[in-house]
Amino acid sequence: MGGRTYRLTLAYDGTRYRGWQRLPNGALTVQGSVERALSELFGQPIEVSGSGRTDAGVHAEMQVVSFSAPEQAPAALLSRLRRLLPEDIGALSLDYAAERFHARLCATEKTYVYRVWNSELPDVFERRFRVQLPQKLDLAAMRAAAELMVGTHDFKAFCANKQFKKSSVRTLKSLQIETDGAEVRFVLTADGFLYHMVRILVGTLLEIGMGRREIASVEESFASRRRETAGETAPAKGLCLKEVRYD
Amino acid sequence: MGGRTYRLTLAYDGTRYRGWQRLPNGALTVQGSVERALSELFGQPIEVSGSGRTDAGVHAEMQVVSFSAPEQAPAALLSRLRRLLPEDIGALSLDYAAERFHARLCATEKTYVYRVWNSELPDVFERRFRVQLPQKLDLAAMRAAAELMVGTHDFKAFCANKQFKKSSVRTLKSLQIETDGAEVRFVLTADGFLYHMVRILVGTLLEIGMGRREIASVEESFASRRRETAGETAPAKGLCLKEVRYD
Repeated sequence: MGGRTYRLTLAYDGTRYRGWQRLPNGALTVQGSVERALSELFGQPIEVSGSGRTDAGVHAEMQVVSFSAPEQAPAALLSRLRRLLPEDIGALSLDYAAERFHARLCATEKTYVYRVWNSELPDVFERRFRVQLPQKLDLAAMRAAAELMVGTHDFKAFCANKQFKKSSVRTLKSLQIETDGAEVRFVLTADGFLYHMVRILVGTLLEIGMGRREIASVEESFASRRRETAGETAPAKGLCLKEVRYD
Repeated sequence: MGGRTYRLTLAYDGTRYRGWQRLPNGALTVQGSVERALSELFGQPIEVSGSGRTDAGVHAEMQVVSFSAPEQAPAALLSRLRRLLPEDIGALSLDYAAERFHARLCATEKTYVYRVWNSELPDVFERRFRVQLPQKLDLAAMRAAAELMVGTHDFKAFCANKQFKKSSVRTLKSLQIETDGAEVRFVLTADGFLYHMVRILVGTLLEIGMGRREIASVEESFASRRRETAGETAPAKGLCLKEVRYD
């Protein structure tokens, strides 16, 4: 009975969790919760790899996960898994994958969405998933700055990890700013994202939108690579991993 | 300093609450929470009237409330009220009303929405506001039954209150069944609703949709006026008071 590689897709409301990554102290994490359920299903310890880590309070509409485990019919496993997972973690699909499939190493592109509730009105129903910002935003200035961000750049100024040794060059393929009623939504697609990169890009754009920062500061951040030249890190709860793509 | 009548509109996520109506034992209710905040604002006990009671776990996109209190500028009161209310109760607007305005007695029409997530897929983000039902639903049969429900009828069979002494005749002005992806949404407008009426009507329609009940049973329920001839009461969390109208 050789093991199989499985591909699992999840959605989760990150509100209660200390982020994706399993923590040694037993703190509540999404990875830890999923591994506990899978280990119970298979009757042996199962470790999973996610396409990437999400921070504490960040959500996912589609997180992709790979793991190795004994061969069992995926459809039956999926039903049992759904019953074991808490209601804020949903198993969307479960299938066999190619033996060498790895959710993180094989990912070629990700899309994140960041949602802002741009109104004074209380945001009762979506409050876990949107950040409220009542100030008027200059969308044209934000879109001009977003244009400067798109492309292949060294995003070191937009990364919270100071000891980052590897390349901080990434290709931001698109950054759309959409509106839907009082919601302002940032949709970012890249070949990869650095630690806190989406939240710092969005924080910078919001400061530009509020007139507290110049559009040109984006170019200075790329040139200097210094974190302190960029904006504040936008709060976690507005962020959601929307999609992970593979070749 | 004569008192003024105020009209307050609220939205709330009813998940945490034992319903709208203040309870003597100090249980958490929406009315109790709003009265506590207003009493703090005005420095004296304030009692409010809602357009109607919502059950434990039922939500409101727009609940209308009236109360009498000393004259103070509504705009400033509204800002202070928003800071005092918990994040799952939002104050949408606050204005002076005509002296004789009463949120319940003056209401002429209400609209409720009931939301069903008609899919096997986990409903991670809207799980507080939708009831999951994976079974295939016969929408045509449900719409035919809904047609029978619309109109002026004695809805006693669709009311949970057995000791109901007053008239149980109501005019259901419309009952639309809409779909939006995997969501099936019931939108009901009437001049008034009896206790549990929306949830029993929806429960009956869902049983018809699943093929467990005949369309014609609706007519039998109207004729017999017996609760046990109608369907189960659909769960509270799918229900939301959407709008209250006044002449």
